[in-house]
Amino acid sequence: MRMDSDESYMRRALSLARRGACRVTPNPMVGAVIVRGGRIIGEGYHRCCGEEHAEINALRKASEFVEGSTVYVTLEPCSHHGRTPPCAEALIDKRPARVVIGTPDPNPLVAGAGIAALEKAGIRTTVGVLESQCRVLNERFFKYMETGRPFITLKFAQTMDGRIATCTGHSRWISSPPALTLAHRLRSTHDAILVGIGTVLKDDPELTVRRVKGRNPLRVVVDAGLRIPLGAKLLRNQEEARTVLAVTARAPQKKIQQVLRSGIDILHVPEDVQSRVDLAELFLLLGRKGITSVLVEGGAGVITSVLQERLADRIVVVVAPKILGNGIEAVGDLNIRNMEEAIGLTWRKVFRRGEDMIFDGVLRDPKASAVDAGAT
Amino acid sequence: MRMDSDESYMRRALSLARRGACRVTPNPMVGAVIVRGGRIIGEGYHRCCGEEHAEINALRKASEFVEGSTVYVTLEPCSHHGRTPPCAEALIDKRPARVVIGTPDPNPLVAGAGIAALEKAGIRTTVGVLESQCRVLNERFFKYMETGRPFITLKFAQTMDGRIATCTGHSRWISSPPALTLAHRLRSTHDAILVGIGTVLKDDPELTVRRVKGRNPLRVVVDAGLRIPLGAKLLRNQEEARTVLAVTARAPQKKIQQVLRSGIDILHVPEDVQSRVDLAELFLLLGRKGITSVLVEGGAGVITSVLQERLADRIVVVVAPKILGNGIEAVGDLNIRNMEEAIGLTWRKVFRRGEDMIFDGVLRDPKASAVDAGAT
Repeated sequence: MRMDSDESYMRRALSLARRGACRVTPNPMVGAVIVRGGRIIGEGYHRCCGEEHAEINALRKASEFVEGSTVYVTLEPCSHHGRTPPCAEALIDKRPARVVIGTPDPNPLVAGAGIAALEKAGIRTTVGVLESQCRVLNERFFKYMETGRPFITLKFAQTMDGRIATCTGHSRWISSPPALTLAHRLRSTHDAILVGIGTVLKDDPELTVRRVKGRNPLRVVVDAGLRIPLGAKLLRNQEEARTVLAVTARAPQKKIQQVLRSGIDILHVPEDVQSRVDLAELFLLLGRKGITSVLVEGGAGVITSVLQERLADRIVVVVAPKILGNGIEAVGDLNIRNMEEAIGLTWRKVFRRGEDMIFDGVLRDPKASAVDAGAT
Repeated sequence: MRMDSDESYMRRALSLARRGACRVTPNPMVGAVIVRGGRIIGEGYHRCCGEEHAEINALRKASEFVEGSTVYVTLEPCSHHGRTPPCAEALIDKRPARVVIGTPDPNPLVAGAGIAALEKAGIRTTVGVLESQCRVLNERFFKYMETGRPFITLKFAQTMDGRIATCTGHSRWISSPPALTLAHRLRSTHDAILVGIGTVLKDDPELTVRRVKGRNPLRVVVDAGLRIPLGAKLLRNQEEARTVLAVTARAPQKKIQQVLRSGIDILHVPEDVQSRVDLAELFLLLGRKGITSVLVEGGAGVITSVLQERLADRIVVVVAPKILGNGIEAVGDLNIRNMEEAIGLTWRKVFRRGEDMIFDGVLRDPKASAVDAGAT
């Protein structure tokens, strides 16, 4: 009975937390519910990065009656002074009898210290109620905090038979306008977009958010030899959206200087065994720059490399109602010989958008995904 | 107003007709509704091949009050003596004021003669109410009657990235058991299953209906050179399910005699320009044998040929939540260079079965589909 109601209040806290989606990054989404005598007397969520945390918002609504109550919060209350004072202290001040916590905070600045502070102050804690949902809610934040690497989403549009272009490279357009709008919305929810130089040379894309309202992510080009043309659209309008070029030691110094002079950032990345940009290293470098999520948009070379290295966490595939036959495949050689070695996906959502079907899933390989997706 | 109520009664007749699915083949599904003074006074449908037609079943329910009524029937009443007496005559006997017909019967034995007989007897007719739905309902029957060729459904299971096997040919299993059950149900609704000899040599399949109750279709193997091993499972138990081997002139005479002696049928088919079995000819020959629908189950060679020749009407793709990378693709070279030349599909149903997603659609190419799919 206790567990049942714990779960139902945590479910409410989860749904409050989701209201912060898109506006709290790089913070996690958090919701809080205060219950006394079987009644919810206060609730809140983290609305926007820099503003009050969920617990504070809930406490404000219920300030008179918190003593002896139970507080439900999706993530361990913080114990450090960040942009806002620590929530654990604010809770201790109000003397609830018990704090129920969805999941410990993976942030090394918290990581159990919030729970310890509550316990030390004589407040009982229960940790791990709807834990996997609470982790999935902030899967990007968990991945980033636990590994130092951004959460990686692969996105591409293909025909029913897995082709992203004809044999001549012709690819405009595979997907329908409603699916393109969805792709722009996806961009707006990521800290960075990444493409290979091949895509830049072929399509000269802008990689900005145009079809929906939203912020422009950082644009990252994997360009080991710095082949990008100086006239590329990606190198213009840096005040609108920043561009970073990921190069290796073989990028010519003279062109590096030219690019730097025009205000573009260069990221020097070690080579992998095939003398390409080492993507695992690149993601680590991006993580150090505070990038918590990257949307990989192609082309086939980058998509294949990310899958080969098992670096992807989520995959969004737009499938157009078309059959092309031989052409350019989205995914190249993964060196898989038996069906059991296939990369497994768990689809979270499959839905129609215009003519196209959208597959949204997470990679099952435990090395590739920091979050247990089975719970969704 | 008249049109509105005509459509609503025709809709009812359509839903009655669907109750005959799976049991009326090679007859079409037909439903009938008799309306008098705004009330339905009788309705019926064609239940099973050899039994009464829809109109007769509806007339029986309402025999006293038919004079002056309006009869709605999804397909033109027959005018010929087949297994049952002509329905047009039975209707004329009962003297309805008007007969509303979804679509003319494509059967050359009827083809307007039923309508003419009613008109000649002084009964008003309205033809073409919800016509495209009435055609889609019996799309296999229409294709067969109008072209002499069976309705062709392509069915295969692939990974998300369009592979049906790894680069070593390993393919067991791509799809999950619930999708396999669906595949067996699909078999049971077709007059014939067709595979290429490559699939027989690799998998030695039985191609029978085992996971659900239902009749076994005729099993057709495309085997130009008659390479099938005499011990193949497909050559056993002909009392359970018949097998036909489609060969060309290059099949060795001695083996033909061996196979014929063991009670297997041989179909001699002309070669196409690539010295393979000419599939368009094969389908015509199967049509002449009374086969109205064929389920093409693979492998990639046969699937590609059927698509190349634009012979497919419907496509059912099981998509497993897996990524394989380089391997064997479901669809090979279709000689398509621009996206606009891609074969277009219209999905009728996309649904989950176990872990897999099932895509069920029709080909948009008007040459490939005898039925206007836009109406569904």
